[in-house]
Amino acid sequence: MEQPNSSYQILETSSVPPLLAGLDRIRSMLGGDPEDWRVREVGDGNLNLVFLVDGPAGSVCLKQALPYVRVAGPGWPMSPDRAHFENAYFRTVAPFVEKLIPAIYHYDPVQHFTIMERLSPHIILRQGLIAGHRYSNVARDIGDYVARACFFTSDLAWPFERKMGGLALFAGNTALIRISVDLIFTEPYFSAPRNRHTSPQLDEAAADLRRDALLKVRAARWGQKFLAEPQALLHGDLHSGSVMVTDTDSRVIDPEFAFYGPIGFDLGAFFGNLLLSWFSQFGHATADDDRIAQRTWILEQVEVFWTTFRSRFLSLWAEHAAGDAFPNAMFSAPTDAAALQSARSAFMDNLLGDMLGFGACKMIRRILGFAHVLDLEGIQDPDVRARCEAAALGMAATLLRHPEHFKSIDDVTQMMPRLQPRLR
Amino acid sequence: MEQPNSSYQILETSSVPPLLAGLDRIRSMLGGDPEDWRVREVGDGNLNLVFLVDGPAGSVCLKQALPYVRVAGPGWPMSPDRAHFENAYFRTVAPFVEKLIPAIYHYDPVQHFTIMERLSPHIILRQGLIAGHRYSNVARDIGDYVARACFFTSDLAWPFERKMGGLALFAGNTALIRISVDLIFTEPYFSAPRNRHTSPQLDEAAADLRRDALLKVRAARWGQKFLAEPQALLHGDLHSGSVMVTDTDSRVIDPEFAFYGPIGFDLGAFFGNLLLSWFSQFGHATADDDRIAQRTWILEQVEVFWTTFRSRFLSLWAEHAAGDAFPNAMFSAPTDAAALQSARSAFMDNLLGDMLGFGACKMIRRILGFAHVLDLEGIQDPDVRARCEAAALGMAATLLRHPEHFKSIDDVTQMMPRLQPRLR
Repeated sequence: MEQPNSSYQILETSSVPPLLAGLDRIRSMLGGDPEDWRVREVGDGNLNLVFLVDGPAGSVCLKQALPYVRVAGPGWPMSPDRAHFENAYFRTVAPFVEKLIPAIYHYDPVQHFTIMERLSPHIILRQGLIAGHRYSNVARDIGDYVARACFFTSDLAWPFERKMGGLALFAGNTALIRISVDLIFTEPYFSAPRNRHTSPQLDEAAADLRRDALLKVRAARWGQKFLAEPQALLHGDLHSGSVMVTDTDSRVIDPEFAFYGPIGFDLGAFFGNLLLSWFSQFGHATADDDRIAQRTWILEQVEVFWTTFRSRFLSLWAEHAAGDAFPNAMFSAPTDAAALQSARSAFMDNLLGDMLGFGACKMIRRILGFAHVLDLEGIQDPDVRARCEAAALGMAATLLRHPEHFKSIDDVTQMMPRLQPRLR
Repeated sequence: MEQPNSSYQILETSSVPPLLAGLDRIRSMLGGDPEDWRVREVGDGNLNLVFLVDGPAGSVCLKQALPYVRVAGPGWPMSPDRAHFENAYFRTVAPFVEKLIPAIYHYDPVQHFTIMERLSPHIILRQGLIAGHRYSNVARDIGDYVARACFFTSDLAWPFERKMGGLALFAGNTALIRISVDLIFTEPYFSAPRNRHTSPQLDEAAADLRRDALLKVRAARWGQKFLAEPQALLHGDLHSGSVMVTDTDSRVIDPEFAFYGPIGFDLGAFFGNLLLSWFSQFGHATADDDRIAQRTWILEQVEVFWTTFRSRFLSLWAEHAAGDAFPNAMFSAPTDAAALQSARSAFMDNLLGDMLGFGACKMIRRILGFAHVLDLEGIQDPDVRARCEAAALGMAATLLRHPEHFKSIDDVTQMMPRLQPRLR
């Protein structure tokens, strides 16, 4: 591992105001004097410190990369260079995704921190879904986001030389890609020490899955594709914990896992976490709120997410094709239009299949692997939780084993209720 | 374009001996004194100067990258940095391919030259095939070569971090990748200024192909895959002009187009050029040599090339799988063996399809694009040449339009005689 620069220091609540006071732009955004500023550390993720700073005139958010994995502690060291890749990702996609990311005010490459817009009253989408809230724009916004961020960084939009520059840069993000390779595509499929699952309830299901050679081969194919299909610059960790929402606004955060990979991996992260949310709703039902409407809404969002992505990507392709893949010069005759249309449609069908496969891998790793999701972890009764988890595993296994059953997004949303958990 | 370093100088026959005299190892290999050394410039390729130097004790070959495309002249500038990528390629694959490349003695990153083993009495395979010679080992050697070079640089053999380092390095080889993108995958499919073909004989066939929207879409898919599927480190230009042979020995040269790409692209280069050679044999037939035995032999070599590649790649995968794709840890149970075997077999089937698709693209570009091959150019009678070319175009179009007809290499070799040129 690279050692952090010698002048790197882990920030504390008390060290933040003097630091910000030295940055004119930030100081004037906050207003008043450093002693007027309120600082709270609120990081709840796996990797970073997050400080919210409120001043008389405004607020900012400061995110610092720690030199180790926060959930594991200093015993699992990790280069804070990931802040560099997060910053490079935001810089690259900002012109295309506009208001769907926070505004970035300042990046410090030595202290590995970024100062950005404080999103308020936004909350993490995952927490909102657990609480039973619905957000009318989020599925459409994130579908739109993935289409824009991925189309404009693909060979469809850019001369390949520009993509090669990005490919070389993000090839350096190996520390975080290693986490994805191990935790998503490898360890859930054997008895790795870092794995855990709801035990003993899921012991048998876990053992069955790890004996399912066909399923493992399918998962391995997705893992291979993850490493060897740089279609576009990906966020790399686009689950519902990387999206902040209000009733009308959506923002994508935390792209430190960014790299060039298959578009279906970003799609699958959001898709798979919507499915996990759906299965978890059975465990969050109460006498007051049976969550039936919430479940119906989630399945609608699965559909909205995909159809928005698909139509946005196709419209960008129709209007902004300036890349070396499917170059315009080859298809300038009016007689080319139908075949080109059909090729684009086939490309989208492939992306649908990729989304389902990667989504299934993301579901399995959250139930049998190292890092779980609060949607399921928050279900207090382990028997109930295990049944939700078992049902989600069943859906993921079906997606991996029987891709031929899922030719459209409707095929997915129609299958889900048939695989719902049996709670009594 | 990057400017060559200011101390870069284009070498001449007279400037080579003083240069080599300053390199102790080379001096002692050549023996005697610089005035005893015989120097000849023999470069016949598109890009470089090649000097053969003979001394009393031995010989060397010196290859210098020119700052422009040799066939086009200084009006088409090109960074001599490609020598750097050629050297990095040779260094990377040397441990795996052993005697199938020339020994590299010295690399000068400022003057952009490499001093390597002088291959003698080797000749360029393409010239041997045109002359009607057969080389009993070459198809097996090159199948073996592609299997070794590609397997050991893929995610099947290496932890992905090592591949990412190579990916970043070769992402810099944009000047040569640009040539491939334009000349192989784009320009042949429309009326680009650099194109040429045997005219007027092929005018109609060229126009037909450029109106064939389905065929163009298929070619564009291969072009897209070329840019976005870094399975392994590729030679990047592995046609029969990049192989030197004797009756028993085969060596791969000229890897300046090296980059991380789809394995089928290297396979397709050799495959496609064998097919071009087969079609050209009709034009080289004489009263003394009808070339029938040569044609039969070439089709056998197509089969030997693929089957050698396939079996070698599978045996390397069985013995040396230490990468992050299909990781061993996931497949350690005896019950996994059958599914894993079947996945490997499916992977090879995909590579066969890739070889045929890329091979077809390589054939088309040599008939309708900028740079042609001597196999066909050497046919003096333009009517005869055009008929050979038209037949080759027909085969390439069939490969692109009807991949479903080619499930095995036998399907290819059985189709070829049915598409042979009608010369009278």
